[in-house]
Amino acid sequence: MKRVAIGIDIGGTNTVLGVVDENGDVLVKDSISTPTHGDAKKYVHSLSDSINELIDSVHKLNADAEVMGIGIGAPNGNYYKGTIEQAANLAFKGVVPLVDMLRENFPHLKALALTNDANAAAMGEMIYGGAKGMKNFVMITLGTGLGSGIVVNGDLVYGHDGFAGEVGHTTVIPHGRVCGCGGEGHLEAYCSAPGIKRTVFELLAKYNDGESELAKYSFGELDSKKVYEAAERGDKIAIEAFEITGEHLGQGLGDTVCHLSPEAIFLFGGPTAAGDFIFKPTKESMERHVLPIFRNKVEILPSKLKSGSAAIVGASALVWKELEKE
Amino acid sequence: MKRVAIGIDIGGTNTVLGVVDENGDVLVKDSISTPTHGDAKKYVHSLSDSINELIDSVHKLNADAEVMGIGIGAPNGNYYKGTIEQAANLAFKGVVPLVDMLRENFPHLKALALTNDANAAAMGEMIYGGAKGMKNFVMITLGTGLGSGIVVNGDLVYGHDGFAGEVGHTTVIPHGRVCGCGGEGHLEAYCSAPGIKRTVFELLAKYNDGESELAKYSFGELDSKKVYEAAERGDKIAIEAFEITGEHLGQGLGDTVCHLSPEAIFLFGGPTAAGDFIFKPTKESMERHVLPIFRNKVEILPSKLKSGSAAIVGASALVWKELEKE
Repeated sequence: MKRVAIGIDIGGTNTVLGVVDENGDVLVKDSISTPTHGDAKKYVHSLSDSINELIDSVHKLNADAEVMGIGIGAPNGNYYKGTIEQAANLAFKGVVPLVDMLRENFPHLKALALTNDANAAAMGEMIYGGAKGMKNFVMITLGTGLGSGIVVNGDLVYGHDGFAGEVGHTTVIPHGRVCGCGGEGHLEAYCSAPGIKRTVFELLAKYNDGESELAKYSFGELDSKKVYEAAERGDKIAIEAFEITGEHLGQGLGDTVCHLSPEAIFLFGGPTAAGDFIFKPTKESMERHVLPIFRNKVEILPSKLKSGSAAIVGASALVWKELEKE
Repeated sequence: MKRVAIGIDIGGTNTVLGVVDENGDVLVKDSISTPTHGDAKKYVHSLSDSINELIDSVHKLNADAEVMGIGIGAPNGNYYKGTIEQAANLAFKGVVPLVDMLRENFPHLKALALTNDANAAAMGEMIYGGAKGMKNFVMITLGTGLGSGIVVNGDLVYGHDGFAGEVGHTTVIPHGRVCGCGGEGHLEAYCSAPGIKRTVFELLAKYNDGESELAKYSFGELDSKKVYEAAERGDKIAIEAFEITGEHLGQGLGDTVCHLSPEAIFLFGGPTAAGDFIFKPTKESMERHVLPIFRNKVEILPSKLKSGSAAIVGASALVWKELEKE
C-alpha cells in the first residue's frame, strides 16, 4: 500500500490540485478555473470531478495507492470551521462551507482539512521541507502579499477564531503606506512583490535618478524580478530597494521573534530569488530590533519547498498532520 | 485533604512567597530580601528555610493541607531549564539552576516549575482570574516595563528557547525612544509607567505648557499615578499622555492580534488604574491597526488578579498547570 494525499490550492484565477505521496512528490496534477462569478455549488461539483479523475489516474499508476484525504489551502480559509470566509480575491461571497460540501462527495476519506495558503505552506515545510523536526518556526510567504504560518509546539497556531498568523498586517511604520486591507503601514505594504516596486518608485522620486535602469519602467510594468536583475547588475536604486525591504522585514520579523521565539523563520516566494540582496539586510535588521536575549538565535532560511508545486504539496501536508492527531 | 501550592515571586529587592489554595486565596505569606550580591547557594538556603516555615504554618492552620509543589516567577526565568539566566536586575550572574537547587531540598514535592513573572501572571489569570476557560489569550503586565505571557491552545508559549512572550520589545516606532534593553522604539519605552512619564515630558516640551499641574514635577518626582490623578482633574497634558500611550499600545496589541488572534488581552499593573483614560484609546487604536477580519473580535480586559498578591498567586498557578500535565 502506498499512502497518498490530495492537495488543493485555491487561487483567485486557478485552482490547482494534485496527488502527493509521503515524500512530497507530486504524482499527478490538474488545474481548473476558479469561478469569477456564480455560486460555490457548481465549483465544488467541477472540483469533485477533477478530484475523482486524479484518483483514477493515480490508481492507474499504482493500484496499491490509498488516498488518505484532502488538504486545501485557500485565502481566508478557516481551519476550525472548514470554511472560506469573505475572501476578497474570490467570487464566492459570505461563508462557503467547503469541507462539509466536499465531505458529502468523499465520505470515505479519513481526513479533510482546510486552512489558508500560508498555513498550508508552513505544514509543507514541516512535513516535507526545511522545518522537518522543528517544533517552533514561522513560515513567511512573499508574493502579491505577505502571508504567514506560525507553528508552536509542533502545531499550527489558529487562534481563537481560526485566522491567526497574519504577520503581513502588523504595523511597521505608523501612518505609513496604505495596505491592500485598508490599514496603514502594514508589513505587507513594504515587504511583498508590489511593496518592493513601491519602494523603487519612492527611491526614483527621492534621488530624481534618471540613470537607474529601473527609470525606464512604468508602475504597471515593473515587477520584483526586474528589480532583482537590476540589483545583480549593480543598479543602486535596486540594491537600496532590497536594503529597505530587508530593514522593514527584519523589523517585522523581530516582532515575531519577540512574540514567539521560534527556532527559524522560513522565507518563501518570488522575491526570495534575490538571495543575499534581501536575506542579508533582513537578518541584520532583525538582530538589531530584537531583545538581546534573542540575538543570534533565530535563523532566517530559504524555504525548501519547490516553487512550482509548493501550494499543492503544502495543502497535502495538512492530511498527514490530521492523521497524526488520530 | 486540602491541596495547596507555594508561589514565589523573585524581584530585584524582595522575594515574596506564599501558600495558595486552589481558589487562589493566599493562606500564609512571607518575604525575604533578594541578595544584592553573593552567590545563589546562600539565597536558596534562606529561601528553603522560609518555604519550610510556610509549610509548617499552613499545617498548623489545616493539618490536612497537602503541599503539591512550588511555582516560581522570576525575571528571565526559563521554563524549559528551570533556570534564571542573565537577569539584569538580579545579583546572580550567569545561569542559576534554581529548580534543580530547590528540588534537592524538596525532593518529595510533585511539581516544581519556574517561568518569568509575566508568564506566571498569565497562568494566574487562567487558573484563578478572568481567563478561566479561555484557550487563547494574552496577558500584558504594565509596570516598570511591559511584560507579557501568551497562551495558545491552553498552554503558555515558551518558544524554542523558553523565552517567548516579550511583546514589550516589539518595535512600534522605528528609530524611536531608547529602550532599557538598548533597542529603539520598543513598545515598553512608550507603554509602561516610565513610558507614560516620558510622554508627559515630551508633551510639556511640545506645548511649552507651564499651566499643566504636571509642570511642577521633576523627572525624578513624576510617576504614572500622578499623571492619572491629573487626568481625573481634567489636565490636558495628562489626558493626552494617556491617549498617546493608548495609541502606541493599541498598535502593539494589534500586532499581537495579527500573530495570534487571541480571544482576549488582559492588562495588569499600576497604569491600568487609569481605567478608561488608557483602555479606551488602546481599544480604538488596536481596532484601527488590525486586519479587518479581526475587528471587534478581541476584548481588552482588566486583569482580575488582586494587585497585592498577583505575583505569588500567579507563580502558584504554575503548580496546578504542571499537575494537569501528568
